[in-house]
Amino acid sequence: MISVEFMHRLAAVATRETLPRFRQTGLVSNKLADGFDPVTEADRETERAIRNLIRTEFPDHGILGEEFGVEGGQNACIWVVDPIDGTRSFIAGIPLWGTLVGLTENGDAVAGMMAQPFIGELFYATRHGAHYEGPHGAASLATRATKDLAQATLCTTTPAIFQPSQRVAFDRLEQRVRLSRYGTDCYAYCMLAAGQIDLVVEAGLRPYDIVALIPIIEQAGGVVTDWNGGPAEKGGAIVAAATAELHAQALEILTPL
Amino acid sequence: MISVEFMHRLAAVATRETLPRFRQTGLVSNKLADGFDPVTEADRETERAIRNLIRTEFPDHGILGEEFGVEGGQNACIWVVDPIDGTRSFIAGIPLWGTLVGLTENGDAVAGMMAQPFIGELFYATRHGAHYEGPHGAASLATRATKDLAQATLCTTTPAIFQPSQRVAFDRLEQRVRLSRYGTDCYAYCMLAAGQIDLVVEAGLRPYDIVALIPIIEQAGGVVTDWNGGPAEKGGAIVAAATAELHAQALEILTPL
Repeated sequence: MISVEFMHRLAAVATRETLPRFRQTGLVSNKLADGFDPVTEADRETERAIRNLIRTEFPDHGILGEEFGVEGGQNACIWVVDPIDGTRSFIAGIPLWGTLVGLTENGDAVAGMMAQPFIGELFYATRHGAHYEGPHGAASLATRATKDLAQATLCTTTPAIFQPSQRVAFDRLEQRVRLSRYGTDCYAYCMLAAGQIDLVVEAGLRPYDIVALIPIIEQAGGVVTDWNGGPAEKGGAIVAAATAELHAQALEILTPL
Repeated sequence: MISVEFMHRLAAVATRETLPRFRQTGLVSNKLADGFDPVTEADRETERAIRNLIRTEFPDHGILGEEFGVEGGQNACIWVVDPIDGTRSFIAGIPLWGTLVGLTENGDAVAGMMAQPFIGELFYATRHGAHYEGPHGAASLATRATKDLAQATLCTTTPAIFQPSQRVAFDRLEQRVRLSRYGTDCYAYCMLAAGQIDLVVEAGLRPYDIVALIPIIEQAGGVVTDWNGGPAEKGGAIVAAATAELHAQALEILTPL
């Protein structure tokens, strides 16, 4: 079982590796020959350090990470790591990025954490609930009770993540909600778990973008699936909702029969 | 002259009034009978407290604020107050909002501050430079040296702030830059001053959305005007740039001859 103490150790590694590199210059290289996919020294060093910690503590577990791929993928327990989710925020100085570390057992996400070291926030879930620690205190995480799209706040990172047909579906949903916000990456899912917003709808996610967040959302009382209502663990097009009712309404609009 | 000590007193008032109301529920009312323009108790109480502080300290100065209009508008010195710039971020739990307080002398912005009390950040400028205080230290603010649009990071709050013809111009600019980010409100101008991004382009701003930020940008070495190159103090369509060269390139694309 994953302890709260281990969550804190993961967060401490994230803080140690990311914070000295945030709002510095000269650390951006470019993954793609064509186009701009920033990857920073912070991404690589953070993932390296988190892998070391997991290997030492859980030698029988596998690891899947954004920067260095899979190791021990035949194991029942696989850790899924995004060293800096929201790299674009990171390189723009905006503290909505996070270090994501999740654990899957036989493919199901069972524990996870999101650390935002600049603000000093930690969102995490074990089998014993979802919790928050921040600069002004600690709390349990619980989604709010919004059941009607017309009352909902919707977040997504950017319209550019959607394929054309997905974009049409997203626009249709956006017209039905009360308020929408862009530019949120992993932070939006944590605000959903914290009862601050009601819906997150994205597409094109990789497993490491979402696995750590699934237990946080679910243990806080929310629902997260792909746009067809299937498991979110594989990524792709994702909808997370504060309540089952809102989730059903969103699915109906995103993927009409 | 406006002292650093007075900037700290303004920031302390902002913290006292906003922080206990951030990430709480039930505090949102609705300004418009039709549509959704959230205004919170935090907006009103923060502006009230800041007005009291200014009145006591500078009885001969005027005040213009988002919530309660103008008082003493005939004075040469007018304080311009947005108690919570980024109310939509505020009500979504996202800490990119800020309390903005600027000072104009005969219409020119000469001092200003942006406080983000949840993170514990303060960006301010007097006639003696632009400065930053945050959870991990203090620093002078200086824009970076980007001179080429193709290397620039561009921020705006949402495409929805633009009129159709402005949107076409913004899209044209966005296609020329390296990276764009949404959802940033006042925080983007501060990241520009801090050398983290290179351009902010917005429209439909009111004076209280921009006046406090002008001295921060200018004292950090940046340029901020309207889309025609005129003074930014009246708001409207605004472009802020890290360098004069970048500013000129952006204007050329936004308002071609």
